[in-house]
Amino acid sequence: MRAVDFIQQKRDGKEHSAQEIHEWIERYCKGEIPDYQMSAWTMAVYFNGMTDKEVAALTLAMAKSGDQVDLSAIQGIKVDKHSTGGVGDKTSLIIAPIVAAVGVPVAKMSGRGLGHTGGTIDKLESIEGFHTELTQKQFVEQVNSIGVSLIGQSGDLAPADKKLYALRDVTATVESIPLISSSIMSKKIAAGADAIVLDVKTGNGAFMKTLEDSIELAQAMVSIGTETGRETAAIISDMDQPLGYAIGNALEINEVIATLKGNGPVDLTELCLTLAAHLVVLGKKAADPDEARLLVERALQSGEALEKLRQLIAAQGGDAAVVDEPERLPQAAFTYEVKCERDGYVSAIAAQTLGLAAMKLGAGRATKEDAIDHSVGIVLGKKVGEKVSQGDVLAIMHANAELDPQHEAVQMTLSAFAIAEQAPAVRPLLQAIVTKAGVQRLLE
Amino acid sequence: MRAVDFIQQKRDGKEHSAQEIHEWIERYCKGEIPDYQMSAWTMAVYFNGMTDKEVAALTLAMAKSGDQVDLSAIQGIKVDKHSTGGVGDKTSLIIAPIVAAVGVPVAKMSGRGLGHTGGTIDKLESIEGFHTELTQKQFVEQVNSIGVSLIGQSGDLAPADKKLYALRDVTATVESIPLISSSIMSKKIAAGADAIVLDVKTGNGAFMKTLEDSIELAQAMVSIGTETGRETAAIISDMDQPLGYAIGNALEINEVIATLKGNGPVDLTELCLTLAAHLVVLGKKAADPDEARLLVERALQSGEALEKLRQLIAAQGGDAAVVDEPERLPQAAFTYEVKCERDGYVSAIAAQTLGLAAMKLGAGRATKEDAIDHSVGIVLGKKVGEKVSQGDVLAIMHANAELDPQHEAVQMTLSAFAIAEQAPAVRPLLQAIVTKAGVQRLLE
Repeated sequence: MRAVDFIQQKRDGKEHSAQEIHEWIERYCKGEIPDYQMSAWTMAVYFNGMTDKEVAALTLAMAKSGDQVDLSAIQGIKVDKHSTGGVGDKTSLIIAPIVAAVGVPVAKMSGRGLGHTGGTIDKLESIEGFHTELTQKQFVEQVNSIGVSLIGQSGDLAPADKKLYALRDVTATVESIPLISSSIMSKKIAAGADAIVLDVKTGNGAFMKTLEDSIELAQAMVSIGTETGRETAAIISDMDQPLGYAIGNALEINEVIATLKGNGPVDLTELCLTLAAHLVVLGKKAADPDEARLLVERALQSGEALEKLRQLIAAQGGDAAVVDEPERLPQAAFTYEVKCERDGYVSAIAAQTLGLAAMKLGAGRATKEDAIDHSVGIVLGKKVGEKVSQGDVLAIMHANAELDPQHEAVQMTLSAFAIAEQAPAVRPLLQAIVTKAGVQRLLE
Repeated sequence: MRAVDFIQQKRDGKEHSAQEIHEWIERYCKGEIPDYQMSAWTMAVYFNGMTDKEVAALTLAMAKSGDQVDLSAIQGIKVDKHSTGGVGDKTSLIIAPIVAAVGVPVAKMSGRGLGHTGGTIDKLESIEGFHTELTQKQFVEQVNSIGVSLIGQSGDLAPADKKLYALRDVTATVESIPLISSSIMSKKIAAGADAIVLDVKTGNGAFMKTLEDSIELAQAMVSIGTETGRETAAIISDMDQPLGYAIGNALEINEVIATLKGNGPVDLTELCLTLAAHLVVLGKKAADPDEARLLVERALQSGEALEKLRQLIAAQGGDAAVVDEPERLPQAAFTYEVKCERDGYVSAIAAQTLGLAAMKLGAGRATKEDAIDHSVGIVLGKKVGEKVSQGDVLAIMHANAELDPQHEAVQMTLSAFAIAEQAPAVRPLLQAIVTKAGVQRLLE
């Protein structure tokens, strides 16, 4: 089929065959389809959408465009988890030990962060000695031995997605549900997952601003999972404030340890238990989410999950003593308290702004080459809904240079907190669960 | 404005300012906007359309992207005429002398044809000695002296349109009314027209298949004319069969001469008189189309229009004696009669197929470098609606090689005629007239 006819097919609302989509992506990767034809097609997709079968074909075509991780040497159903992103999101580090403790193998590859704070891999590197680069053989052996391994992404996974995303970014075609969902799922499938749980954020701070849009995205990804034989579930959670209290690499590892000890923030703990329960269901260790919930709660309360974290750190060469003595994590030289300027209620916390403030302190990287300062970051003193008085500590900033009220990061942190006279309406953290059985709305 | 934001603006159905559109086209011509951003934008235009103001701005931006012909040295309102194309369309050659005879100056530049038969310039070159390349000075002086000149297009008119059209052609974004209308009008404006009459074809053989689509295109062009201060009118005519009987360069000149003598085919004569009358109105030589119609009919009947053709040929170095002795035009060596194979009625004549058959004989060019054989072509024996019997001559083919029933061009010509048992419904030639005053439908 000529490229122009393929574009016209989508423009006119007709359905591509799976074969046509595979050829389209293959020829794009080879440079036979120029960017100007691909971008016209993505804009047509923006307007006309794609059927479930089309999206599944696009996902598989992109997954097959590069290296594909083979996890077949690991026994059991390999589950993976993906978050649509968020400031202070350390859920993977909590969920992986819990799920592994229940007996579901976790062989997870994560990227490094580009932006506010580091990614999962950067956070782990806060722990002295922790290796995030294992060979494929070491990776598989470790999962077979202790049930869990978290490593940095190696190889060239879904290069078609990388090329396509860069094009979409400059042609105003990012905001398309079929293109977003296939982008995410193609990388998970290339990374070898048998089953996937998605943590889809919604709200002002998230990519999807409304619950309905978030549900639509979740449904699209669950549908791709169903079409491609990778059972998928999605939890839609609020993103109108950071998750937990800690923002910054070592600070977040500290919060991870506290959470696995049962002393974590309520919102973070609840989201992690929910995501973990769904992973346990997909991993066939429980018949339904209720049964799974009992298993994951027991793993947390019994200390088995914490022990799994200890094993994970030790297996990858890290200083496992941090689990019992978190003060062994890197500490910033200075702290600075950001105080509330008037009485009222915290009505909103701009997570993005806090993320950028943490980056100013050195917690993240603006370019791939930047080094990360693992010790710095921000710890919230108050969360949305809390009553505050003038002088209350809204946040403690951890920095390796002295801060003062005029410092940009301090100003940003202060500005991130909206203080209202009235208590805000309560926004529940968990908003909906989407599985192949349908959408379960958790509001009211 | 960043390119991606400009694309998003259109994607989201917002209106661009004239300034933004001018910059967009200017930067595209300079290569600062890459094709992949332009094609995403054109696809967004395909879906979301453009406002009248946007289309006018796009038209002017493209008109100003290259050379602009200055006809200010010619007295009077310079009118131009454009046809959306058609097989056997020799209207310009008939209208120009008629309108000039009424006193409206015609300074017309035409392209060479690429496809079935030659363009206006190729047809004129059937006449021995006729020069189609004049200097700008000669061109202007001739129009001031005898009121008419028809020359080949020189200079680089609307290069932005050329670049954009080539991109649209391979990205399935040709079929967009704002993009089609601005493309046509930008070239007319760059060619210096003060007022424009458009011959918009409709029907199976035309670019616009339905009357409603044709009216929409006509309205878009009339609106551009109004917005840019070039009064514009459009005549929508049927294109379900070739116009007149002759297809091929010298054969069409022969038909032009016959028509200017008052012996032309009814459909061709009627369309030319209608188009000419509207040009006379826009040229302010008559108050309304009815008054103009009397003037153009008189110019035809009195022989003044034929005399004007004689003057035009002589002024441009051609053999004006052809007007009185059309047999001086190049003649093909052989003729071949294509005969009807059964009794019935001619229900349709596929103009495109006949055009391609004429090209096979040498009447057109497939690439810019091909030479044209001015003598060859096809003359219809029957038109749509006529009763035919087996053995009747449907068409006479003029060729410079002997033809037989197996020749591809003969087969194509025969296949172009649909013969039905019942007489077809009559389709009137003139279907609608669109001016800034509104749409006048001529059906029932």
